[in-house]
Amino acid sequence: MARRGANQPSVGGYNEAVVLDQIRRSHGHSRVELADTTGLSAQTVSNIVQRLLDAGIVEEAGRTSSGRGKPRTTLRLVGSSRYAVGVHLDPGLITVVVLSIDGEVIARHARATPAAQAPADTTAVLIQDIEMVLAGSGIDRTRIVGLGVAAPGPIDIQRGIVLDPPNLAGWDRVPLRDAIADATGLTVMLEKDVTAAAVAEKWIAAPGGAQNFAFLYLGTGLGVGLVIGDEVVRGGSGNAGEIGHIVVDPDGLPCGCGLRGCIAVSCAPLPLIEEAERRGVIAAERSGDDPTEVDAALTRLVHLADGGDEAAEKLLRECSEQVARALAVVSNLLDVDRIVMGGPLWDRIGETLMDTVPTRLDELRVARGVHPVTVSDTALGSDVGAIGAACLILDEALTPRPTSLLVPTA
Amino acid sequence: MARRGANQPSVGGYNEAVVLDQIRRSHGHSRVELADTTGLSAQTVSNIVQRLLDAGIVEEAGRTSSGRGKPRTTLRLVGSSRYAVGVHLDPGLITVVVLSIDGEVIARHARATPAAQAPADTTAVLIQDIEMVLAGSGIDRTRIVGLGVAAPGPIDIQRGIVLDPPNLAGWDRVPLRDAIADATGLTVMLEKDVTAAAVAEKWIAAPGGAQNFAFLYLGTGLGVGLVIGDEVVRGGSGNAGEIGHIVVDPDGLPCGCGLRGCIAVSCAPLPLIEEAERRGVIAAERSGDDPTEVDAALTRLVHLADGGDEAAEKLLRECSEQVARALAVVSNLLDVDRIVMGGPLWDRIGETLMDTVPTRLDELRVARGVHPVTVSDTALGSDVGAIGAACLILDEALTPRPTSLLVPTA
Repeated sequence: MARRGANQPSVGGYNEAVVLDQIRRSHGHSRVELADTTGLSAQTVSNIVQRLLDAGIVEEAGRTSSGRGKPRTTLRLVGSSRYAVGVHLDPGLITVVVLSIDGEVIARHARATPAAQAPADTTAVLIQDIEMVLAGSGIDRTRIVGLGVAAPGPIDIQRGIVLDPPNLAGWDRVPLRDAIADATGLTVMLEKDVTAAAVAEKWIAAPGGAQNFAFLYLGTGLGVGLVIGDEVVRGGSGNAGEIGHIVVDPDGLPCGCGLRGCIAVSCAPLPLIEEAERRGVIAAERSGDDPTEVDAALTRLVHLADGGDEAAEKLLRECSEQVARALAVVSNLLDVDRIVMGGPLWDRIGETLMDTVPTRLDELRVARGVHPVTVSDTALGSDVGAIGAACLILDEALTPRPTSLLVPTA
Repeated sequence: MARRGANQPSVGGYNEAVVLDQIRRSHGHSRVELADTTGLSAQTVSNIVQRLLDAGIVEEAGRTSSGRGKPRTTLRLVGSSRYAVGVHLDPGLITVVVLSIDGEVIARHARATPAAQAPADTTAVLIQDIEMVLAGSGIDRTRIVGLGVAAPGPIDIQRGIVLDPPNLAGWDRVPLRDAIADATGLTVMLEKDVTAAAVAEKWIAAPGGAQNFAFLYLGTGLGVGLVIGDEVVRGGSGNAGEIGHIVVDPDGLPCGCGLRGCIAVSCAPLPLIEEAERRGVIAAERSGDDPTEVDAALTRLVHLADGGDEAAEKLLRECSEQVARALAVVSNLLDVDRIVMGGPLWDRIGETLMDTVPTRLDELRVARGVHPVTVSDTALGSDVGAIGAACLILDEALTPRPTSLLVPTA
């Protein structure tokens, strides 16, 4: 993936990344075990570990004995040795997190995205939040490996440009990656929000077993992040994951694409609220379509349903049915093992979706007799986009690839 | 992928496969160039090449001089050294091909699938065709690496079972892989038809550049084979590629899934013909829904359109529009670089689709401003499923993986 930064680290070694990845996942391998699992020679492992110890990225954690032979020294990552920053620009919510190299969120800030302002002003808010979180965290800036930004698509991933997302009014080819890199001096990578969420889910998953899942992202827009055969699917231009024009309600409203009842006009947050207002389920109290107002109206709708309002319940059930239909299209096409759901709006409608989606999805899947699909919510909560953006950087640094951000070679 | 065979070859070397793959793709590398491109030592390459020469799989093709230094001996595959058999069971058409190791079709047979008979009888026909083609080809049976079978899904890829394809009446959990392995004594692999088509397309593609495409398969059913990031996407159970319940016509007919206007009830061959009959575009002359009769009716419809019949033209244009809508869903989700179309019915409706689909797909793609998608037909014609089934075997034998079918280790 294209990245840019003022202080771009040098290219490190592939073997280092292999060893680091094992140390991260194993939670306590010794040098001997690292040699066994990586296939590298004892001498190579020993040299790499010494460099990582010298760099303060790894520490000796204790000694284990396996009966015979002398005790072995186990190794672990030093969480405070390196950090990654994750920023999520949702049209309704700006979130900044700092992740330590071992995946802990050590600082966090979230705010409603300021309504109806120029992209430059919103970018300035993003940068201000980043600087505020970093200053508050007290982290030595030289320990920050990089910064990931998750933004709504379409994006130009090569150039780091946010193109013209339908829910970000006024945004048109904004070079967000370089603006943040210039202002912060950090290495910056841009990713589509739904893909960042999938990266987060992949990163925290237990080792072993090829990951094969779709992440349903519920934000101001709906989309899907994909991990197939353990690889994140970005697509030819980094814009994989668009589901807005899957028809989920043949009786639904006309869509700009020429069809009718696309999920983008049926059960994305704004059309859902508009339908609730049309049906008189909630009062039309909004002054506009601002995501914050839409979110507030959605919250009212959910509270009504929770309180037993039948019309509100019915509308949310219809929405869940439509989500299940879209996920059936994704499952039938890709034969995934898992569906994970989450994102900024998960807190609001997650419970309703979990009530309905698993059963309906199974009824709609062609391979239901052959292969189960589990449905769950992410353990990462509504910060999943920001965490995923930070994981992009950690993934680039810690996943064995020919290049690495982490340890400059001597 | 699971495979089974009475004479399953031993596990060969990974390095052999790396060298063979380079020889296949380079069309004339010398030992020195092979060492350069594979990263293997000159001695290792020399040993491997000697084994391949001894086994008759590779031959010395000539000598090249690059100016200074002594001339180098170039190497190439011996097409007649090894073969793979490919069988395609479409509900309307049974095709058997024999591919030489360098990808040439050296024998071929196709017949209409016998209508309305028990799976065991159809399997017997398959086996009879295989034996007939092999006998006619005069190939030494010991040179056949294996046999691939492409069949309609859903399948149980691990057990080699054809489950209950909607277009194969009476088929319910038929162990097709083992039946063919037992009868022929060959190593047999089973693959879903649409995926086999994608394997064929990947196999014949020029080297270089990650393959990222969807193959629209037009047979008795419609489906999609996927190659993403150069890897064939099979899904968790080998059943990826189902598109039948993508809604392409919100005004369309009810579908068994509970929705309306799914592509399976809108523009798959049988519903297309039924609609043509309802509209009086063609006479309802069929005695049943047998794929051969459906194909004949489709051919009549296409001839009418070619002759300028406006109602026939209109119906085929509507069908093309619906295909474009389904492909837009696939493209938006996966951000592919290419759409390839083909399959047994391509000869009938391919021209109509190529007239309409590229433009309409582009209008419907969310990333159209960022990223072009090319639309083309396969160069492999209506045999693409059978060729892909054979390529499965060649792919297993020639693609660098920890196991190989090809050269038993000493």
